[in-house]
Amino acid sequence: MKKIGIIGGIGWPSTIEYYRLICEASQQYHQDKVFTGPIPMPEISIESLNLNFTVNNRGSSEPGSWLKWDECFKKAASRLQASGAELIVLASVTPHARLKEISDGISVPFVSIYESIGAHCQDHNIDNVLVLGTMPTMTTLAFKNGVKAFGVNAIYPSTDVLKEQVIEVIEALYQYKTQGTALAIDRIVRACVSDEDLKNTVVCLGCTDLTLAFESSLDKASFDYKGVGYLNASVLHAATVYQACAQ
Amino acid sequence: MKKIGIIGGIGWPSTIEYYRLICEASQQYHQDKVFTGPIPMPEISIESLNLNFTVNNRGSSEPGSWLKWDECFKKAASRLQASGAELIVLASVTPHARLKEISDGISVPFVSIYESIGAHCQDHNIDNVLVLGTMPTMTTLAFKNGVKAFGVNAIYPSTDVLKEQVIEVIEALYQYKTQGTALAIDRIVRACVSDEDLKNTVVCLGCTDLTLAFESSLDKASFDYKGVGYLNASVLHAATVYQACAQ
Repeated sequence: MKKIGIIGGIGWPSTIEYYRLICEASQQYHQDKVFTGPIPMPEISIESLNLNFTVNNRGSSEPGSWLKWDECFKKAASRLQASGAELIVLASVTPHARLKEISDGISVPFVSIYESIGAHCQDHNIDNVLVLGTMPTMTTLAFKNGVKAFGVNAIYPSTDVLKEQVIEVIEALYQYKTQGTALAIDRIVRACVSDEDLKNTVVCLGCTDLTLAFESSLDKASFDYKGVGYLNASVLHAATVYQACAQ
Repeated sequence: MKKIGIIGGIGWPSTIEYYRLICEASQQYHQDKVFTGPIPMPEISIESLNLNFTVNNRGSSEPGSWLKWDECFKKAASRLQASGAELIVLASVTPHARLKEISDGISVPFVSIYESIGAHCQDHNIDNVLVLGTMPTMTTLAFKNGVKAFGVNAIYPSTDVLKEQVIEVIEALYQYKTQGTALAIDRIVRACVSDEDLKNTVVCLGCTDLTLAFESSLDKASFDYKGVGYLNASVLHAATVYQACAQ
């Protein structure tokens, strides 16, 4: 198994999810294998950042405004590389918007969440994805461009009001106020996509907090809710990471 | 806040507990502090080892038999040091038995679980501790010697049969078979220590799995069960780590 490097702390509950999903994937993988002693696990290095620093140093569209943020993530990637990581993963969707800048000059390959989602959609004949996530995810082209190579058309909530409604749900879930959030997401989805188009569209929960709304489906890569198909980006991503590690 | 280094994966659920407890301690610490943005968190580096390798390379009383095991832990400590960790913690009681060998040549200080427990006992006038843990913990002098400096007398289950009973409970809990385990621990405790001596003795759960037997007290550093005082070694340890980090 290859050594995995995780850039985490963005936020910490999401890092726990990635670490747990990877370790459980190793348990699953070794279920019918022969070995002596405890279940083999990949070596994993985690660099858990200070979310207060990273969020307060987010840039804007101004040139050079992401300098401190980029440097913080690039240094974390360098430390993982120095610790022997053979593949690196960002344990959050949002920073993927700057994956190009973060991975610049790092020779260890990154496992991109866009590629996990794109490959899954390609395998399951999913052409259209409605992405719900944080503001940087829903307002930059990174996600759209990231899945385009797999023939997937990603759309975001079309108005500022709808985007704000997604953020409100994320903020409620961040405080573990789960009641009514699945229904709230369903309402946003139906305001974004017509019933006719929903037949050919899958909703991508592109923020770990959002998955808390669907408690019974927490560990599932995909599930249905009220007749609509959903993808859990973190579960898909962690599964891809373990596959890459076990190769 | 100082950067924390965690040697983990021994096993992985215990690493999640340490990471979660440290992050929650930071949330608690910042509750009445003034800051902008998300709650500040310490930077944390984790080196998660392969439990299959570490357990299969445990040594014996034979000279030189711990060479591979020691090297694996020392290298992890070196990587944490290179990643900028300013204090290092072993996220498990068992490997503390070789803390001296692991920390040899590492200039970053280790926060020892023996010192966390010793200091807690000193502060709370606890003189006698019955230690329940894995076989290496209950058969070597490391724990006894580690708390002696704090005026604490540590005892282990006195017979092989009693020690085996502790291991049986740990193995059941490792598979999440929690039913009846609190009562089983109570029976072992009363077989180890007379009712008279129990008045002046506290039981130390010196293995993260054991704490699962007392579900309602999972996050408590100390609690009572059937009139006996218990200490949760991991919770005490994680609290000490955060205190050292925030200093």
